Amino acid sequence: MLTISLLLVILLGGAAIAYSVVTAKDVLARDAGSARMQEIAQAIQEGAQAYLKRQYTTIAIVGAVLFVIVVWLLGITVAIGFLLGALLSAAAGFIGMNVSVRANVRTAQASATSLAAGLDVAFKSGAITGMLVAGLALLGVTSYFFILVVLGGHAPNSRVVIDALVALGFGASLISIFARLGGGIFTKGADVGGDMVGKVEAGIPEDDPRNPATIADNVGDNVGDCAGMAADLFETYAVTLVATMVLAAIAFVDPGQRLAGMLYPMAVGGVCVVTSIAGTYFVKLPASQHIMSALYRGLIVTAVLSLVATLPLTAIIFGGFTNIITAQGVSFTPLGLWLCGVVGIAVTACLVVITEYYTGTQYKPVRAIAESSQTGHGTNVIRGLAISMEATAIPALIIIAGILFSFNIAGLYGIAIATTTMLGVAGMIVALDAFGPVTDNAGGIAEMAGLPPEIRHTTDALDAVGNTTKAVTKGYAIGSAALGAVVLFAAYTQDLNYFIANSAQYPYFAGIPPLTFSLSDPYVVVGLLFGGMLPYLFGGIAMTAVGRAAMSVVEEVRRQFRENPGIMTGEVRPDYGRAVDMLTKSAIREMIIPSLLPVLSPIVCYGVILAVGGKAAAFSALGAMLLGVIVTGFFVAVSMTTGGGAWDNAKKYIEEGHYGGKGSDAHKAAVTGDTVGDPYKDTSGPAVNPMIKITNIVALLLLAVLAHQ
Amino acid sequence: MLTISLLLVILLGGAAIAYSVVTAKDVLARDAGSARMQEIAQAIQEGAQAYLKRQYTTIAIVGAVLFVIVVWLLGITVAIGFLLGALLSAAAGFIGMNVSVRANVRTAQASATSLAAGLDVAFKSGAITGMLVAGLALLGVTSYFFILVVLGGHAPNSRVVIDALVALGFGASLISIFARLGGGIFTKGADVGGDMVGKVEAGIPEDDPRNPATIADNVGDNVGDCAGMAADLFETYAVTLVATMVLAAIAFVDPGQRLAGMLYPMAVGGVCVVTSIAGTYFVKLPASQHIMSALYRGLIVTAVLSLVATLPLTAIIFGGFTNIITAQGVSFTPLGLWLCGVVGIAVTACLVVITEYYTGTQYKPVRAIAESSQTGHGTNVIRGLAISMEATAIPALIIIAGILFSFNIAGLYGIAIATTTMLGVAGMIVALDAFGPVTDNAGGIAEMAGLPPEIRHTTDALDAVGNTTKAVTKGYAIGSAALGAVVLFAAYTQDLNYFIANSAQYPYFAGIPPLTFSLSDPYVVVGLLFGGMLPYLFGGIAMTAVGRAAMSVVEEVRRQFRENPGIMTGEVRPDYGRAVDMLTKSAIREMIIPSLLPVLSPIVCYGVILAVGGKAAAFSALGAMLLGVIVTGFFVAVSMTTGGGAWDNAKKYIEEGHYGGKGSDAHKAAVTGDTVGDPYKDTSGPAVNPMIKITNIVALLLLAVLAHQ
Repeated sequence: MLTISLLLVILLGGAAIAYSVVTAKDVLARDAGSARMQEIAQAIQEGAQAYLKRQYTTIAIVGAVLFVIVVWLLGITVAIGFLLGALLSAAAGFIGMNVSVRANVRTAQASATSLAAGLDVAFKSGAITGMLVAGLALLGVTSYFFILVVLGGHAPNSRVVIDALVALGFGASLISIFARLGGGIFTKGADVGGDMVGKVEAGIPEDDPRNPATIADNVGDNVGDCAGMAADLFETYAVTLVATMVLAAIAFVDPGQRLAGMLYPMAVGGVCVVTSIAGTYFVKLPASQHIMSALYRGLIVTAVLSLVATLPLTAIIFGGFTNIITAQGVSFTPLGLWLCGVVGIAVTACLVVITEYYTGTQYKPVRAIAESSQTGHGTNVIRGLAISMEATAIPALIIIAGILFSFNIAGLYGIAIATTTMLGVAGMIVALDAFGPVTDNAGGIAEMAGLPPEIRHTTDALDAVGNTTKAVTKGYAIGSAALGAVVLFAAYTQDLNYFIANSAQYPYFAGIPPLTFSLSDPYVVVGLLFGGMLPYLFGGIAMTAVGRAAMSVVEEVRRQFRENPGIMTGEVRPDYGRAVDMLTKSAIREMIIPSLLPVLSPIVCYGVILAVGGKAAAFSALGAMLLGVIVTGFFVAVSMTTGGGAWDNAKKYIEEGHYGGKGSDAHKAAVTGDTVGDPYKDTSGPAVNPMIKITNIVALLLLAVLAHQ
Repeated sequence: MLTISLLLVILLGGAAIAYSVVTAKDVLARDAGSARMQEIAQAIQEGAQAYLKRQYTTIAIVGAVLFVIVVWLLGITVAIGFLLGALLSAAAGFIGMNVSVRANVRTAQASATSLAAGLDVAFKSGAITGMLVAGLALLGVTSYFFILVVLGGHAPNSRVVIDALVALGFGASLISIFARLGGGIFTKGADVGGDMVGKVEAGIPEDDPRNPATIADNVGDNVGDCAGMAADLFETYAVTLVATMVLAAIAFVDPGQRLAGMLYPMAVGGVCVVTSIAGTYFVKLPASQHIMSALYRGLIVTAVLSLVATLPLTAIIFGGFTNIITAQGVSFTPLGLWLCGVVGIAVTACLVVITEYYTGTQYKPVRAIAESSQTGHGTNVIRGLAISMEATAIPALIIIAGILFSFNIAGLYGIAIATTTMLGVAGMIVALDAFGPVTDNAGGIAEMAGLPPEIRHTTDALDAVGNTTKAVTKGYAIGSAALGAVVLFAAYTQDLNYFIANSAQYPYFAGIPPLTFSLSDPYVVVGLLFGGMLPYLFGGIAMTAVGRAAMSVVEEVRRQFRENPGIMTGEVRPDYGRAVDMLTKSAIREMIIPSLLPVLSPIVCYGVILAVGGKAAAFSALGAMLLGVIVTGFFVAVSMTTGGGAWDNAKKYIEEGHYGGKGSDAHKAAVTGDTVGDPYKDTSGPAVNPMIKITNIVALLLLAVLAHQ
């Protein structure tokens, strides 16, 4: 039963990879356009690859050090898990981005034929990344579990299996924090810097070939929005799967139920990968030519099919619908677990709708920002900040409702299953997101290659939709990260109390009373405040990094314009490589310290409080720190990503001709808002996601290390 | 002993009032300047009084409804406490502001003589408000306690006494949230709107008499920075005193120690009021003419004298230095309690230093914002936001250290005493803050009355210092509010578990297990997220309100300029009253809903979770909600107040001649940053303080109401 189930899940994960390979062949076979277009695409490709190579080299150094430490502290089996998580996450980002930088020019070319053709190439390219993310994450967890349990003969709930899975999550986390942050700094440094000197000072349009930062801007879309996003969701997926399995390993008493409880999240992932693939075939431009409807249709089909398919699956794994399962003293039925999955899908749907409300040009918030632009830069930014803060309320209530429903159905494991199911459709969601940079690049290539304006019109339409899907995906990413972190926190507390209860076997934990993490314990309050501080500090450092990178781009572009007047007349081609090089170096340099912040903070928090108040106090403060990171991190991330999206679209709304249109004072104010929103939505905000999870996973690893003492 | 001690404290509180009366006579006896100056001052006075009258009328309506509810639910004795808290808080704000609007013109006139004379009048005016705040808060709590316990014969720890004190805190909270928010919306609506149309569009300087919004701007300084701030710190003072007494009433087992524990915070308050008065006499301009040194000297003297004076006081109240006191199972000595006071003063000192670092023109953060202004509006705002976020880290660590030290010395009661001592010097701190609007107004009056530029130069020097002291006070206010809220939360948990333990007497609490507020309880997580949401929603609504008010001012000023061209030529005086009227109406209208948010949220949270998960779940979620408000509220408030101060001074730094000086592109970008910072630092940020405490105090009241069932 176990062997067959695991092999089936591996097979389903393999199907996702197969889909990616077949679709990639399809995309790459398309017409890559004129020589000029290919030349531009080539420059973007080279820039993106150069950046990614350097980024992975840097991560590899950090990773190698950590690998040695993990081998030393926890043994080679666990360390291999770490390596596997890191390598697969890197692979998903690397392959996805390599497809993306080839699909961009093909999308531009296809857009010459029709909107439907352009959409087809761009979406398929996104779907490749999406399925790689979900497929590789699922394959990694499942196959290492298979190797350890079925081939290696370890008990499913043995420490080595749990530790190896946690280490796998840690590997994914490590890639994710670096990729999100480095990519985010690169892309927004290029975007902000390029816009400020190009649009504002020189008065040339976006993506104009005379702007020396324009290739860097297009490179940034790929390394940030494609590779960065892929690593982020790979991590959320892998880490949540792992946390659910750890929770199941500890929470269930009955061995049969325990195995089923550990298998179930993998099986849900396997089934949902297939429904996601099925969903992609429903993305077809309707007669109305409404692109968003086409994309939503794919998402809705995936969601409905997932719910339909997991219903019998639940019965198969748990042996019926109405038998009683007990975990951590809470009893529920398999049908209840399936309902938790429904809750997860409902949370996804609500988050998508509310994010679209706050960031869509047809609704009040974006229009209010546009209206405020009439009275100047200041009122635009004030209104944007106000909306970014208000926009956190309903998502918070959605997450709260999700927790209340799933907890009341099946306890903590119910919350975990809701989150796992929510993440089941990650393949489809990433597809919607990775579609964005491809269309953005396609527009850039069309502009730079001087293609006829109709093509630019088509790619602009695709690009505008890409902005919305990017915002929507970010809402989903932070929502799932928050729920995932709640599951991780539960895994931490259960794991800790397991060690305390078995302190005969784990002597480090001897003499510690069972911990309640009571809010009336000042060490818990201290932990909450310390954890709450991290997203603020981290977000601030990331914003500063973008500001610095942008300023250096501004100076470089000004220098090129000054030293080579032929650039502006179009006689001389600017030196695009310089800007790419500079940004690569500065993004890599700036990403290291903030990335290490969430890795080291749990260890520092534990160490300091251990010295002040002893082990019980230290474990309590560390636990509270994890929750503190979630609480402020959620609000920081949602406000930043939503606010940034709203600013961006307020500018677009004015560009559509409202309040004076392009070139008016209102437009200038809106460009300022958009510039502020750029690092908000594409650097700091999204990078808070992995930082929330990495603190949690490091805490779990710390427990494992202490148990080894 | 009890009678004498209380009468002594009442006497000391009376000394603060006496100081205020004597000093007010002194200030009002100064020369009020020329007829033109008096005419302008008259206009400001009338505007401020008209606003305050309307604000208090509105609050009175809400207050009357609440008074009836409190009478009905908790009886007349408790309701009188509520009334007393509200009336005294209103009185402190009202009298302080009335002195302030008369001191402004006298400061302008004195500045004609010398800087020292100007400083003297302005600081004394601030000190009046400061001593009124500390004196009236102390008098209110102490005399009502005296009436109930000594005259009324109630036991000090009887429910009626505790409930009456909590209701007194609630009364103060109610005034504070309305005054902070209404005043904040008024002042920043006038400031932002007036600047945008006056400075940016019409190109006339600040406080130019031709600007129809200029009187409103000066009115705003008084109703926001003077009356609003006074109400805020009155509340923190009263509420923390009350919470410490409630904690003592429940935590101490020995009746003698309990009485001493309840008396001690009042006695510390009494002694510190006198040391604050003493400190004011040390504020004298040194030979270096360095204003900030003069002010800091007063603060340092107050701090040192307070520590010296509380040392013997502690021994007198607790009968020695080294005897053992036990509260809630923690044993400590009176000397330890005094050390907690030292911690409170140390926290104050550290917060002052770090806030000055982040907002002073001589340090890196402000200069970095100024530097970023060179590359445009966008980079200015990005860098400012980055610094506002980073600036939360060290204050958080300071609060954490304060909690760890005082808790390790004397448990929860130790944290309460650290906070009480920190608030002991509130009189001096408010003096520093209330000094700001007086000098700001003095500058405005000098400009409008066309006084010679030397006088304007002197008032400008005073005004610049006022900006720093305002920022520093805000850091103190939020730090003390955070610590005060931790004490309030402790009072909530202790109170709740007291009711549960005595459920025979309080049948509503029968059958509820002792609550631990464990973070592994999903209801606690839900409460944290719900509470965490409130400062974001509240802050966002307040920002929106300022944006709307400013836009209406812009339109009104544009209308006057358009319809009456004689205004710009100086032939016709603009209609100042219209802008004041409009802002009054809009501030009152906009303040109601957000003010009710923190009042109603605890009740809604309790009610919803009661329906979903029962009483234990509801009390847990409510408790967690209180802490959630503290966690995100602290970061929201610190980032906003510090960031706003930094933006303001970055503009001033450029105006001093750096990066092109006034009129340069960098200056324009810096004005945008300053505009964004205005509602950050003067509306949303500071209004988060009272909202943190009001949620806590409403929760305590809710317990009292439920216990009455």
